[in-house]
Amino acid sequence: MRRPLITLLSDFGTRDYYVSAMKGVILSVLPEAEIVDITHHITPFSILEGAFVLWQAVKWFPQGTVHVAVVDPGVGSGRDPIVIKAGGHYLVGPDNGLLVPAAERLGLEEVRRIENEEFTLERTGTFDGRDVFAPAAAHIARGVPLHKVGARKDDFIRLELFRYETSPEHIAGHILHIDRFGNVVLDVPSSVLPSDWPRSLIVEVERGERFKARVSSHYEEGSPGELLVIGGSSGLLELSVNRGSAAEAIGVLPGQGIKIWPSAAEKSSEI
Amino acid sequence: MRRPLITLLSDFGTRDYYVSAMKGVILSVLPEAEIVDITHHITPFSILEGAFVLWQAVKWFPQGTVHVAVVDPGVGSGRDPIVIKAGGHYLVGPDNGLLVPAAERLGLEEVRRIENEEFTLERTGTFDGRDVFAPAAAHIARGVPLHKVGARKDDFIRLELFRYETSPEHIAGHILHIDRFGNVVLDVPSSVLPSDWPRSLIVEVERGERFKARVSSHYEEGSPGELLVIGGSSGLLELSVNRGSAAEAIGVLPGQGIKIWPSAAEKSSEI
Amino acid sequence: MRRPLITLLSDFGTRDYYVSAMKGVILSVLPEAEIVDITHHITPFSILEGAFVLWQAVKWFPQGTVHVAVVDPGVGSGRDPIVIKAGGHYLVGPDNGLLVPAAERLGLEEVRRIENEEFTLERTGTFDGRDVFAPAAAHIARGVPLHKVGARKDDFIRLELFRYETSPEHIAGHILHIDRFGNVVLDVPSSVLPSDWPRSLIVEVERGERFKARVSSHYEEGSPGELLVIGGSSGLLELSVNRGSAAEAIGVLPGQGIKIWPSAAEKSSEI
Repeated sequence: MRRPLITLLSDFGTRDYYVSAMKGVILSVLPEAEIVDITHHITPFSILEGAFVLWQAVKWFPQGTVHVAVVDPGVGSGRDPIVIKAGGHYLVGPDNGLLVPAAERLGLEEVRRIENEEFTLERTGTFDGRDVFAPAAAHIARGVPLHKVGARKDDFIRLELFRYETSPEHIAGHILHIDRFGNVVLDVPSSVLPSDWPRSLIVEVERGERFKARVSSHYEEGSPGELLVIGGSSGLLELSVNRGSAAEAIGVLPGQGIKIWPSAAEKSSEI
Repeated sequence: MRRPLITLLSDFGTRDYYVSAMKGVILSVLPEAEIVDITHHITPFSILEGAFVLWQAVKWFPQGTVHVAVVDPGVGSGRDPIVIKAGGHYLVGPDNGLLVPAAERLGLEEVRRIENEEFTLERTGTFDGRDVFAPAAAHIARGVPLHKVGARKDDFIRLELFRYETSPEHIAGHILHIDRFGNVVLDVPSSVLPSDWPRSLIVEVERGERFKARVSSHYEEGSPGELLVIGGSSGLLELSVNRGSAAEAIGVLPGQGIKIWPSAAEKSSEI
Repeated sequence: MRRPLITLLSDFGTRDYYVSAMKGVILSVLPEAEIVDITHHITPFSILEGAFVLWQAVKWFPQGTVHVAVVDPGVGSGRDPIVIKAGGHYLVGPDNGLLVPAAERLGLEEVRRIENEEFTLERTGTFDGRDVFAPAAAHIARGVPLHKVGARKDDFIRLELFRYETSPEHIAGHILHIDRFGNVVLDVPSSVLPSDWPRSLIVEVERGERFKARVSSHYEEGSPGELLVIGGSSGLLELSVNRGSAAEAIGVLPGQGIKIWPSAAEKSSEI
C-alpha cells in the first residue's frame, strides 16, 4: 500500500525548530506519513516566489500527495487557512494566493476553509504552520473527507504568475526566479518562442541595457560568458551562461521585466 | 505499527558527509527507522543554542522518539556519551549540558553512560556522532533496554536556559535565539508579562539604548518598523518587527541582556 | 523486509525545486523508497568535491543502497548517463568521473549505460537528475536487473582523488575538502604518517609559508589557535584548529598542495 505522502514548502529556513515542529505534529497524527521537503528557503514573506517554486514542484508528485505551503506574513491576522483539492492532490496553506498557481496547474477542483478544530491544535497565533496546516494536512492525508474540514470558499485570493506579452516583433516577460546557478527563469513558456526566429536574439533588461544571446538546447554550449536562451526544465524560457551566473552577467533581480527579439546583428551593429 | 522515530540536531551543517554518515549507520542498524532533521545549522560549538532549539522541538514529537543531538567541542576528550530517558522520550548525545533543558522539559527520568560496545562502532575519536550516538540511538529505538547500554550517571553536566528576573517595575531577561526572520526570542515565558501592564512598553538593550515597543498578538501589526513584544510560538516573549528584522532594528546578539518596563510615554517624552 | 534505500548528492542547493522533483519522481515509481540526502551543497560544477563527499559517505550505507549523484556541467551534451554496480551498492549519475572513486572504494563490479527508455522520463535536456537518474535509480532499487538498463561500458571516465607522494623526509599531498568547521582534509591516508616521526611537524602551504603543527588524536587539544594534524573520521589526515578554522588560520583553498615534515624546532628556530 502506498504510504501517505506530504510535501512541505516554506520560508522558515532550516536553522530554527519550525520545520521540525511541523514534522513532529504530522508524525504524531500519522506515523506512517512520508514527508518530503520541497524547500524552506523561500525568501521571507515572498508569496510570489513560494507560489512559483510550488508550481514547479507539484506535478512531479503522485496523485494523493498533500502539499503544505507556508509563506504567511499575515499569520495571526484575519486571513483564512484553506485546503484546495486539485487534480487528485491536496494543497494546504494560507489564503494569500500562495497555493493557487500550483492548484490551477493540477486542475483546481474546490477550495475549503480549515475550520474544524478536531483537525487542528490550539492556535498560538504566530505559527499556523504547526498549529493548523501540519495537523490538518496529516488528517487529510489519512483520509478525512474535505467536507468535514470546513465550508467551501469561493472568494479565495488569486495570484497570476504568468503575465508575459507577445507580438510578432518581440516577447515581453518578467523574471520569476533566479536559481542556485544564476539561471534567470522567465514567466514565458518555451513554446512561445517563434520557431522561425533566428538563433541570435537580443535580450533587453528593465533598465534598458541590451545583450546578445543565442538560443540553445542545453547549458554547456557557447563560448565562456555567452548569454544563452534555453527552454528550461519547467517548460519556461531561461537565460543562462555556461558555468556562470546569467543573473550576475546581466545584472537582474526577480520581478524585473525582460524583452526579447530577433537580432539584426548580421546586418547592423546596434550593440 | 508505529515506525521508530529518530530526530537529529547538530552543528554539522549540510555541506559535508557527516549527517549522511549518521543516517547510514542508523539505517544499517534499523532499516525501518524514520529519521527527522531538527536542524544541522546550530552555530558551531554553541551548546547553548543547540540546547535551546532542542528544547523548542522535542515537545512536538510523539512519545518513544529518540532525539540525537551533537554539538560537541569536546569530542575525543574525556567527556561521556550519555542517554537520558525523559517523559517517554530518549535523548542521546554528549554530556555537556546540551540535552538537559529538553530532558527537563519532557520530565527527566534517568541518565546513563553509553558504555556497551555492542551498541557502538569503533571510535575514531573525532566523530562520535557517527561512531557512538547514531548506532546507540538506533539500538535504543529498536528496543534495547537502557540498563544494557550503560551504568547510571548522576553527576551529569547541567545547563540552565532561563535566567530572567522580574520585579513589579521591570522584567530583565536575555536573548536566547535570533530566528531566520530576525525575531529576538527571550528567556522569559510569555506568562511572566503582567496583564495589568499597558500595551506600550520600553525595551532597553544591553548597551543602554531604549526603544518604544507595543504588545501584540501577532507579527503583522503595527506601522512598518514598529517594535512589537509578542508571545511567541514557544511560549516565550519575542521582540519582532512586522516584515522586518527586530534583531537588526535594535542591534542585538544572542546572549545579551534585555530589560522591559511599562512606557510612561503618555505623560513624558523620555525617549 | 528492508525498505529500498536511495541516497542523493548534488550541487542543486536547497532553494529550488530540483531536489524535490527528483524525490517526487522516485516516489512515483517506488512509493516505499527511503530517500536520504547526502548533500546538495556541492560547489556548483565541482565534480572533484562531489566525488570526494560521495567517496566519504557511501561506506556507511548498507548493501543494496542506490546512490544517485548529480554534479553535471555536461547535461544535455553528449556524455552518457551510467549506473555502476560496486560492492553490492549501485551508483547512478553522469559519466564524468563523479561516481568512480566511491565505486572503487566499494569494489567496482561493472559499469552500464542507462539506455532503456522504459526506465527514464522524456528528456528535456537540462535536467537529467529528474528525467534520467531519479527514475532509473528507482527502477534499479525496485529490482530491475542491470542488463535490462543498458549495455556495458568499459571506456568510462576515471577520476583519481588521491595523488599524494611520500619520501622518508616528507609527505606531499593536496587539499581535498574544507569542511564546515574549517578542518582541512588532505588526500593523504592517516596511516601514511610515519609512527616514528615526532609529534611536532612543519606544514608548508602552496605559496611557501610554513606553520608549526602538532599531531593530535582529537580536535579539542592544544592552545587556542595551535595548528593540529589529526587522523580524521574518513581515515585521512586533517589540519585542524581547536574551536577555530584551520583553513582561515593558514589561508588555504581546496586543490592546493600541502607538504608536511618533522619539525627540527627543538634544535633550530627556522620558523
